[in-house]
Amino acid sequence: MTQANKQWLLAERPVGEISESTFRYNEATLPDINDGDILVKILYLSFDPAMRGWMDDVPSYLPPVALGEPMRAAAVGQIEASANPDYPAGRLVMGMLGWQQYAQFDRNSAAELQLLPEGTPPTMALSAFGGTSMTAYFGLLDIGQPKAGETVVVSGAAGATGSAVCQIAKLKGCRVIGIAGGAEKCQWLKDSCGVDAVIDYKHEDVGARLAQLCPMSINVFFDNVGGDILEAGIAQMADFGRIVLCGAIASYNDSEPRPGPRNLMVLIARRVRMQGFIMLDYLERMEEFMTEFGGWVLEGKISYREDIQQGFDNIPATLKRLFAGENQGKQLLKLADPIEPGVPS
Amino acid sequence: MTQANKQWLLAERPVGEISESTFRYNEATLPDINDGDILVKILYLSFDPAMRGWMDDVPSYLPPVALGEPMRAAAVGQIEASANPDYPAGRLVMGMLGWQQYAQFDRNSAAELQLLPEGTPPTMALSAFGGTSMTAYFGLLDIGQPKAGETVVVSGAAGATGSAVCQIAKLKGCRVIGIAGGAEKCQWLKDSCGVDAVIDYKHEDVGARLAQLCPMSINVFFDNVGGDILEAGIAQMADFGRIVLCGAIASYNDSEPRPGPRNLMVLIARRVRMQGFIMLDYLERMEEFMTEFGGWVLEGKISYREDIQQGFDNIPATLKRLFAGENQGKQLLKLADPIEPGVPS
Repeated sequence: MTQANKQWLLAERPVGEISESTFRYNEATLPDINDGDILVKILYLSFDPAMRGWMDDVPSYLPPVALGEPMRAAAVGQIEASANPDYPAGRLVMGMLGWQQYAQFDRNSAAELQLLPEGTPPTMALSAFGGTSMTAYFGLLDIGQPKAGETVVVSGAAGATGSAVCQIAKLKGCRVIGIAGGAEKCQWLKDSCGVDAVIDYKHEDVGARLAQLCPMSINVFFDNVGGDILEAGIAQMADFGRIVLCGAIASYNDSEPRPGPRNLMVLIARRVRMQGFIMLDYLERMEEFMTEFGGWVLEGKISYREDIQQGFDNIPATLKRLFAGENQGKQLLKLADPIEPGVPS
Repeated sequence: MTQANKQWLLAERPVGEISESTFRYNEATLPDINDGDILVKILYLSFDPAMRGWMDDVPSYLPPVALGEPMRAAAVGQIEASANPDYPAGRLVMGMLGWQQYAQFDRNSAAELQLLPEGTPPTMALSAFGGTSMTAYFGLLDIGQPKAGETVVVSGAAGATGSAVCQIAKLKGCRVIGIAGGAEKCQWLKDSCGVDAVIDYKHEDVGARLAQLCPMSINVFFDNVGGDILEAGIAQMADFGRIVLCGAIASYNDSEPRPGPRNLMVLIARRVRMQGFIMLDYLERMEEFMTEFGGWVLEGKISYREDIQQGFDNIPATLKRLFAGENQGKQLLKLADPIEPGVPS
């Protein structure tokens, strides 16, 4: 079996924005399947803001992607060939499968894969039930600890994580203000996610609008953006408010670190807690998430959108799309359809 | 009784550093003592970094000092005349007595005063047992939550709050690194406060020294300084570390807010909690503080220094002294000695 495996490798560490030379196309040959091995055909790739950080050669919660290796990415795939009875051919799996057509695992590394329950639509495992939703769920509830009646402000509110945060906060009885870019995203947040107010950062002064909508009365600020929007949020925190630091997409592509918020003194005067977190720390609490949040999804209480791009060649461009904020909902890219006895689409 | 009362009034709101024109000398006449009133003669004034913030016309945990009013300041005084049996003449009291020789209270406002236990040396109520020590105690233990064996880094370590933090952390079994300005302060921290290592920010590169002494392994960073030192501390936080935001004396006198730390992303990747607090929130837990911390003081386990300036005319200059970091220990100014039957000195 000498099967070709198209890949996008990390060719150089980007300084600032990713460019044409960041990734390099490659065609590898798949090795044979030996005892215990499985071969996974990748169906859908997930694109996530955190991927930018994985490209930098700095110590972090995951090791940097090595130069010359396929770019790391969460994905759903289907087991195409298996010499491991725990992972039978045909089953869908989720894991860090990377920017390639196929990923191979041996008996040990197979433990990094998560078998999807039979019948799970493959894109839903990356969108509604994916890491972005888990990030929203534990970040808001565990770190933000909102109480019914409190005001929750969410930046990057129309993104996969942000829109889940908005809806969880509404389900918990909070007043929710979403910050997003563009009229279409803002309209969707109001119509489909039920937020109480929206701020269009592309056309409105976020600081002035927050001062109108929630003057010094933000109890939980869930920040996906950083930069000026974080500073604007800090300015309107309530006493004993909580800032959930989830991401800082505004600055992921900076070549020089940008100055932080000038108003950290507010955290002292108003006794504010600002706390970062990583979804990976909550993997062992997945059942909790699936029970409550999964229930909401099945009851139709959670709106979500998938932005599904197509084609292996478009992989790097799709990541750029995410950083430009052009995606409408969870950014995915389809590489292949599952084959029978797979999952009905 | 037409007694004169010298005062220093807030004359204008300073932009940046305080100057000659920030305060105005005044001589008021004390009104008569009516039923329920008490008159307090001020013995020792306390100088605290937070006073700079009280001069700004911005909403905060205390209202701004009004223009034309005596500057707000914690102080210890002695009741000179009383028409309130709960506050007998001769007793020492602590409270926000302000920059003046005498402060008068009626039946309602007397509740703002704290009667000192008989025999308390008046300066100790502002130094070893004062608000700075309470700030250290609750900030470190309640917000920082250090565990034995952990590494605690303290900025402004030779100050009244910082040196108490260092010593509490040592008593709780932590490794302690103090950051202070100048060889004398650093030597005192090592010799008298028992810290494990010191960094002299005036002569050493704080970032480089932290990277040597505690690379990515600060469990608790107790920050009194802000600015570049906060950024240097963030860079070396351990996973799940806690940053206690106590103050930011580096920037209190800025006329323009200075940029914040450029590396807040570290808080996400390392799941760091950064939290501000105000000592006033802990007043109802004073007994807890007096029991444990007071016990340490009485057992001689806490070193502290008092820097006692003299003379009513020197009050504004003494505040400048504090912001220049020239004080050696808790900054006080003596206005008068207690009279019999006062406290033996």
